[in-house]
Amino acid sequence: MFLQGSWYLQKVSDNTYMLMKIRSIIYRGRTKYQYVEIVDFEDYGVGLVLDGFVQSTEADEYIYHESLVHPAMTLHRGPEDVLVIGGGEGATIREVLKHNTVKRCVMVDIDGELVELAKKYLGVMHKGSFYDPRVQLVIKDGLEYVRESKDKSFDVVILDLTDPYEPSGLARELYSEKFYRDIKRVLREDGVVISQVGNAFYYPREFDQAVSDMKRVFRYVITYEVWIPSFGYSVNYVLATDIIDPLKINSSEINDVLRHRGVTTRFFNGEIYESFINRKVIKKI
Amino acid sequence: MFLQGSWYLQKVSDNTYMLMKIRSIIYRGRTKYQYVEIVDFEDYGVGLVLDGFVQSTEADEYIYHESLVHPAMTLHRGPEDVLVIGGGEGATIREVLKHNTVKRCVMVDIDGELVELAKKYLGVMHKGSFYDPRVQLVIKDGLEYVRESKDKSFDVVILDLTDPYEPSGLARELYSEKFYRDIKRVLREDGVVISQVGNAFYYPREFDQAVSDMKRVFRYVITYEVWIPSFGYSVNYVLATDIIDPLKINSSEINDVLRHRGVTTRFFNGEIYESFINRKVIKKI
Amino acid sequence: MFLQGSWYLQKVSDNTYMLMKIRSIIYRGRTKYQYVEIVDFEDYGVGLVLDGFVQSTEADEYIYHESLVHPAMTLHRGPEDVLVIGGGEGATIREVLKHNTVKRCVMVDIDGELVELAKKYLGVMHKGSFYDPRVQLVIKDGLEYVRESKDKSFDVVILDLTDPYEPSGLARELYSEKFYRDIKRVLREDGVVISQVGNAFYYPREFDQAVSDMKRVFRYVITYEVWIPSFGYSVNYVLATDIIDPLKINSSEINDVLRHRGVTTRFFNGEIYESFINRKVIKKI
Amino acid sequence: MFLQGSWYLQKVSDNTYMLMKIRSIIYRGRTKYQYVEIVDFEDYGVGLVLDGFVQSTEADEYIYHESLVHPAMTLHRGPEDVLVIGGGEGATIREVLKHNTVKRCVMVDIDGELVELAKKYLGVMHKGSFYDPRVQLVIKDGLEYVRESKDKSFDVVILDLTDPYEPSGLARELYSEKFYRDIKRVLREDGVVISQVGNAFYYPREFDQAVSDMKRVFRYVITYEVWIPSFGYSVNYVLATDIIDPLKINSSEINDVLRHRGVTTRFFNGEIYESFINRKVIKKI
Repeated sequence: MFLQGSWYLQKVSDNTYMLMKIRSIIYRGRTKYQYVEIVDFEDYGVGLVLDGFVQSTEADEYIYHESLVHPAMTLHRGPEDVLVIGGGEGATIREVLKHNTVKRCVMVDIDGELVELAKKYLGVMHKGSFYDPRVQLVIKDGLEYVRESKDKSFDVVILDLTDPYEPSGLARELYSEKFYRDIKRVLREDGVVISQVGNAFYYPREFDQAVSDMKRVFRYVITYEVWIPSFGYSVNYVLATDIIDPLKINSSEINDVLRHRGVTTRFFNGEIYESFINRKVIKKI
Repeated sequence: MFLQGSWYLQKVSDNTYMLMKIRSIIYRGRTKYQYVEIVDFEDYGVGLVLDGFVQSTEADEYIYHESLVHPAMTLHRGPEDVLVIGGGEGATIREVLKHNTVKRCVMVDIDGELVELAKKYLGVMHKGSFYDPRVQLVIKDGLEYVRESKDKSFDVVILDLTDPYEPSGLARELYSEKFYRDIKRVLREDGVVISQVGNAFYYPREFDQAVSDMKRVFRYVITYEVWIPSFGYSVNYVLATDIIDPLKINSSEINDVLRHRGVTTRFFNGEIYESFINRKVIKKI
Repeated sequence: MFLQGSWYLQKVSDNTYMLMKIRSIIYRGRTKYQYVEIVDFEDYGVGLVLDGFVQSTEADEYIYHESLVHPAMTLHRGPEDVLVIGGGEGATIREVLKHNTVKRCVMVDIDGELVELAKKYLGVMHKGSFYDPRVQLVIKDGLEYVRESKDKSFDVVILDLTDPYEPSGLARELYSEKFYRDIKRVLREDGVVISQVGNAFYYPREFDQAVSDMKRVFRYVITYEVWIPSFGYSVNYVLATDIIDPLKINSSEINDVLRHRGVTTRFFNGEIYESFINRKVIKKI
Repeated sequence: MFLQGSWYLQKVSDNTYMLMKIRSIIYRGRTKYQYVEIVDFEDYGVGLVLDGFVQSTEADEYIYHESLVHPAMTLHRGPEDVLVIGGGEGATIREVLKHNTVKRCVMVDIDGELVELAKKYLGVMHKGSFYDPRVQLVIKDGLEYVRESKDKSFDVVILDLTDPYEPSGLARELYSEKFYRDIKRVLREDGVVISQVGNAFYYPREFDQAVSDMKRVFRYVITYEVWIPSFGYSVNYVLATDIIDPLKINSSEINDVLRHRGVTTRFFNGEIYESFINRKVIKKI
C-alpha cells in the first residue's frame, strides 16, 4: 500500500538499479565463494540472490531455465550425457531430466554450501532433481572438471554461470575461448554447448566477446534473448555446435522432439524457438 | 563512478521500481493534462517522461516505435491515410512517414503544450516530422476526434497512448470496446489497428481486458512484445484487423513490403515480425 | 560492502526519505490498528517500525526515551502516580520505574497485539518492565481512558504517541487542546505533562499547533529537541505544567533529583536538561 | 505529490542513505579537485554538493555556519586577523565579517574553480562577502598556506573542510595532530581554533581521533553538535584554545559580545552556546 518498507536494491548497470519490495528474508549468509540471500519478493515470490544479483525467482525462473536448456537439448538428436556447470539451485538439471534420452546428468558447481542451501530452501525450484539417479553432483571448479574430463564424453554442455561482468569475477574464466576449446574437446562431434551470457544491452562488450570467442571454436553460433522480469533485463544466450545449423530447424521439428521425449514446458516450444532465432539482440549504442 | 548523485525513480509496478541515473534535467513543468519532464539519463540519453513514466529515450525509442508502427503498416497492402492518436514526441509519425504510400498522416494529441515542448526539445526524436506536408496535427481528445470522423476514412490507426493502468487515467477510455468500435467505423475494410498496451507481466488484467475488447470487435487479433530497457519491462502490443490473418504472413513478405516502400529501419524487419508472432506473452501468475 | 541488498525505506517528509540497510526482518504483520515490523538494521540494531515509521531502535532508543521521561519526572517534586499513553515497546515505563518515588505506573496502549509482540521480541527494550508490580497495563484508547479517569489522579502524564502527521491518523486526536484539557483534569495541581510531537523542521505547522494548544491549557510550556539518528531528524517534545517554571531549574537541581531517586541514565542529566531548555527549535522557513 | 521523479541519493554512512527530492540541477561538473553539483532541493532549496556530500543548503546553512563561526569568534576578546580554510561557498567568511573587530579575513581554498562557481551561483550564500575589502582570497592548499605563514599571525582559525572520512580523502591531512601544531604556531597566544569534524554517531573513530589530536596540542578542547537536516545527521565541531576555558563562559557574556560587535544571527546566541557546551555527543556504541 505504501512505499515505506523493505526493498531489495539490485544493480542492473552502473547507472540503472531495481528496487524490489521484500516480503521476507528467508536466509542470508556467506559461503566460501559468494554471498547468498534467499528472499521472498512481493512481485516474484521466493528468489535466490548471489552477490546481490537475482539468479532465480518463483515467478520467472521457468522462462530462464527452459530457454537455457531446451534449445540446446532439442537440437541434439539424442542427448544421453549432459554436463551442467553452475546452476546451483537445481532448476537447470530439472529441465535436463525432462528429456527421456538422458542417461547421465553431471552437475558441477564450485559452491557446495550453496547446493546444500538450495536443497534445504529451494525445493520449489529443484523439485527433488538432486536425488534423481541419473544425476551426479560434483562440487568442483567447472574449469578443472572439464580439463580433467575424458574426450568426447558429453552430448550437451550447459553453462549456467553468474554473469561475466559481476564484480566478484567468480565465473570470468568460464567465459573464454580457452575454456570453450576445453568444452569442445569433451563434447562428442554432434555436441551442443549453451551459455547464458548476461545482458547485451548494458554490457555489449562482454556479450560480443563471448560470441566472438565461441565463433573461433565452433562452426555454428547463434544468440537469442528473453526478458526475465526479476533480472530487470533481457538475458542473452549463446548456443554453439558444429554439425547442425540451428537456423535451419523450424518450429514443428522442435515440437516433435519435445513430444517424443515427453518434455512438458510452461514457456518454451517450437514457436518460441523460431522467435529466438529471428529476434535481434538489443545492444546499447 | 559513485552511487551518490541524482536518480530518477520510475514505478514499474507497486512493488518494483527502477532507479535511473540522471545527467541533467532539461525541462520540468505541468501542462493542462500531465507533468512533463525531459531528462538526460546516463544509460538512455535524452528521454521524455510523462507523469513519472518514461515514454521515449534516445537509446531505445526506435525499438518501441518501429515495433509499434511497422507491423501494422506492412500488413496493409497500401496505407494512404493513417491516423495516429497520442505519440506527442513525434517519433511515431516519423516511422509512419517512411512508408512512401502514405498521403495523409493525421496526428491527434490531446496535449498541445506537450507537442510544443517536443518540437522545441526533442528534435532527436521527431526529426522534423511535424513539418512534413503529409502531416496534419490536431490538438484534440482522440476519443472525440474519432467520434467526429467520417466512416472508412483511414487505412491504419495507431494508438500510442500512456498506459491503461497509469494513475492519471488520462488514456483509460481509449482502451475500451466502445472506442475500438468507433475505430472500426473509421477504418476501411482492410484497415489495421495497433495499440501499445503497457506491460502484461505486472498488469495482466489490463492486458487481458484490452485483448478481449479487441477480439469482440475484430476478426484477427494478435499480441506481441519487445523489451524496452528504459521502461524496465517488455512492452506489449495488440494488433487487430478483419481481412488478413497476421499469422499467415512470413518474414520475406514483410521484407519485400519494406523494401518496396523504401522503409529503412534499425530494429524491425521480417525476421523480427516472425519472432513477434511466435513469442508468447509473459504474464505473472 | 556493496550497496546491493535489502534496505528499509523510511519517509522523513514528502521530499526526504531514508534508506537503512537491513540485517534481517524479525517480524512483519498487521494488528487491528497498525502495520508492525521488527527489523534488525545494520546501523541501529533491532528496531520497532509502525506503519513504516521507526519508533525505537537498540542504538538510540535510550536517547529518545530518557529525553521523553526524565525532564517531566524530575520537574515534579515526587511523582507517585504516572500515566503513560502509548509507548507500546515498554521502554517508556522502563524509564519511569527508575524513579523510586513511583508507586503506580499506568500504561494505556490501544494496541494489545503490539504490546504482546513487544513482550515477545523486544525484551532488549522493555527489560521486563511489563512485569513490575507497580505497572498496570490497560489496553484501551488513551482518549477514552483519560475521559473516564478520576480528577487529579496523576502526577505526571507522558504521551508517547505516533506522530501527529502520520497518514494513519491513529494518534491525531491525542494532539489537541480538547485532550490536553482532559489531561489537565486528571493531573494534580503540580502535575507535569510531556508529549513527543515529531519533527518541527519538516512539519512546523503540526508542531506549532501542539505548542499553542498546550499554551491555551497550561501556564508554563517549553519545547526541546534531540537528534535521533534512526528517525532521520531531531525529535521535538512539548512539556507543560502550571506550578514550576521549567526555565528556572538548573542542572545541579536536576542532577540532585536523579541521584536522590536512584535514577541512572546513559544520556540524560542536568547538563542535558540545560541544553534542552537553551536550544532553539529548528523549523523550516 | 508522487514519489516518482528525481531524487538525490546522499550517503550518510555505509548503511544509511538519504533520498532528497530534486527540483532542478543547476550545475554539474568536475573541478581539478572534486565533483561539484549545485542542486535545487524541494525540502532545502539551492544546495552545494561536493563529491556527493551536501555542504550547504539555503534552508539550513545558517545553522551550520553560525555554529561554526560564532562560538570561536566570541570566545576571543577581539579577533582582528581570521584565517578560514575551506568554506568555498563563502558563507563562513560572511559570518566572520559580521564581527566588527575583524580587520583581515584570509580565506584559503584549494579549489579556485569551486570558488568561481560559488561566486556565480551561490550569491544567496556568500552575499557578496568575497568582495569585502577585508577579505583576502588565496587559492592554495591550506596545509601549505599554514606552513608558510608567519608565527602568531592569526587570532582565530576556522577549518571548514570536507569530512575526514570522505572517500576522496581531500581533507584528510587537515585533520591531524601535525596540522594542529602548525595552526598553533600561527595562532597568537589567546587564539582559538575551530573545526567541523563531520558526524560522531556514524564515524566515532574519526571524531575521537580529531578530539584526541586537538587535546595533544591545546589546553582546552570542547566539542558540540547541532542537527543539520540536509546532512541527515548532527554535525560535530571541535573547538580548542589555550587561555580561556570555554566551559566558564555563560550565555550573557556571549550575548554581550555579539551585541557589542554588531553581530546579528538567525540561530546562534548565548543560550545556544550554553546548550552546545552542555550537550553530550551522541556516538554509536
